[in-house]
Amino acid sequence: MLDPRLSVIDERLSRVKRIMAISSGKGGVGKSLIAAVSALILARRGFKAGLLDLDFTNPSSSVILGARSLYPVEDRGMVPPKISGVEYISITFFAGDEPSPLRGEDVTNAFVEILALVRWSPLDYLILDTPPGLGDLLLDLLRLIKRLSFLVVTTPSRLSLETVRKLILLLRSVKAPIIGVIENMLMDSSQSLGEEIKKLDAAFLGSIPLDPGVEKALGDPEKLLETKFAEKLSEILNAIQ
Amino acid sequence: MLDPRLSVIDERLSRVKRIMAISSGKGGVGKSLIAAVSALILARRGFKAGLLDLDFTNPSSSVILGARSLYPVEDRGMVPPKISGVEYISITFFAGDEPSPLRGEDVTNAFVEILALVRWSPLDYLILDTPPGLGDLLLDLLRLIKRLSFLVVTTPSRLSLETVRKLILLLRSVKAPIIGVIENMLMDSSQSLGEEIKKLDAAFLGSIPLDPGVEKALGDPEKLLETKFAEKLSEILNAIQ
Repeated sequence: MLDPRLSVIDERLSRVKRIMAISSGKGGVGKSLIAAVSALILARRGFKAGLLDLDFTNPSSSVILGARSLYPVEDRGMVPPKISGVEYISITFFAGDEPSPLRGEDVTNAFVEILALVRWSPLDYLILDTPPGLGDLLLDLLRLIKRLSFLVVTTPSRLSLETVRKLILLLRSVKAPIIGVIENMLMDSSQSLGEEIKKLDAAFLGSIPLDPGVEKALGDPEKLLETKFAEKLSEILNAIQ
Repeated sequence: MLDPRLSVIDERLSRVKRIMAISSGKGGVGKSLIAAVSALILARRGFKAGLLDLDFTNPSSSVILGARSLYPVEDRGMVPPKISGVEYISITFFAGDEPSPLRGEDVTNAFVEILALVRWSPLDYLILDTPPGLGDLLLDLLRLIKRLSFLVVTTPSRLSLETVRKLILLLRSVKAPIIGVIENMLMDSSQSLGEEIKKLDAAFLGSIPLDPGVEKALGDPEKLLETKFAEKLSEILNAIQ
């Protein structure tokens, strides 16, 4: 595809030091929560952090951050609003609360459009919340965004691990850098699939216990940062920062 | 799209009495488990039941049913193999364990191909396991399969409920029949979003508690049927059968 917007994307992202995609293959493993809270933690540590929610199927970051009334400002592109220090862009800014049953090509186009339009500050970290599946958007991410590395999320269920195994195969086959794998929503340490995860072709970064306190903290970044979930995620980020 | 395979699909499904799509919008809410175990329960009750796993992003039914070595037989189309009395077809029969990063149109084509090829017996129930999201495949389902009704799955999290709300809006907008909503993976009855679910434009069918026993029963249909999860799902199926 020859698209003049592609060179614009490079330019838009040129001042971002590190771009991390939080991916899982399977939905419902806490990917969006890990993406949003990672951005909050990094901002709290003094880094310039951005969050880009590209999960067209379930743009849940606005619910997680309580960012429903935020909108970007137009100024030679779109300037992301900030929430708790994080520069933040989500598809919900454009689609609102209506269902967005986009077909494959529409998703690709919307994706290119957003990447070409948004004017990020010089960021230390841009965190991408990616859609579940091994489909269109993942291929687009790999094609459109250079210097993209992947943080992979699974749960301690064989159903999730099967998908993560495929995701890692796919990423390895296109030589995409994989930071490692996080096991999320661990209910009981005896249930951990850590040993299985270690057999995958990626680093095992640690387990985050299931934290029932997260549900009540949804929509409130300060409360989210105080959860046990954030505490454990913070330790994992220390190791990969 | 003028596609000769579309009339073949009608013919292939003409002897199926009821076609139910298990949908969630969001992944990881237990949709695949509800689809597979519903088919097992109906077969156990003496109904002729089929399961079609159309979740190209995460075809987990083969792991749930322990159906890895099953394959369809070719005979004027594809004849589905049976597992525990359930006629069963999954994309994994075709893609195997490799990642299948299909793009939008490829998914639509594979979907039409499978529907046009498979020769189901005269079934009382065909259960469809659908991919997460409000995207391509949902639109295709609505276009390709007549007499399709939807069983919607959520978890007691606001993140899931937001998506289910959009899914119901979308289904209502195209006049698709909605059987109702199941709340799955309830950890604590005080956490239930039942009251919120009742405000949606669909019947609330009940809650299924989170059952840690399911993980160990994965891959074994007999054990799955003995879980508390199956017991509660069975009650819900009584009400809508």
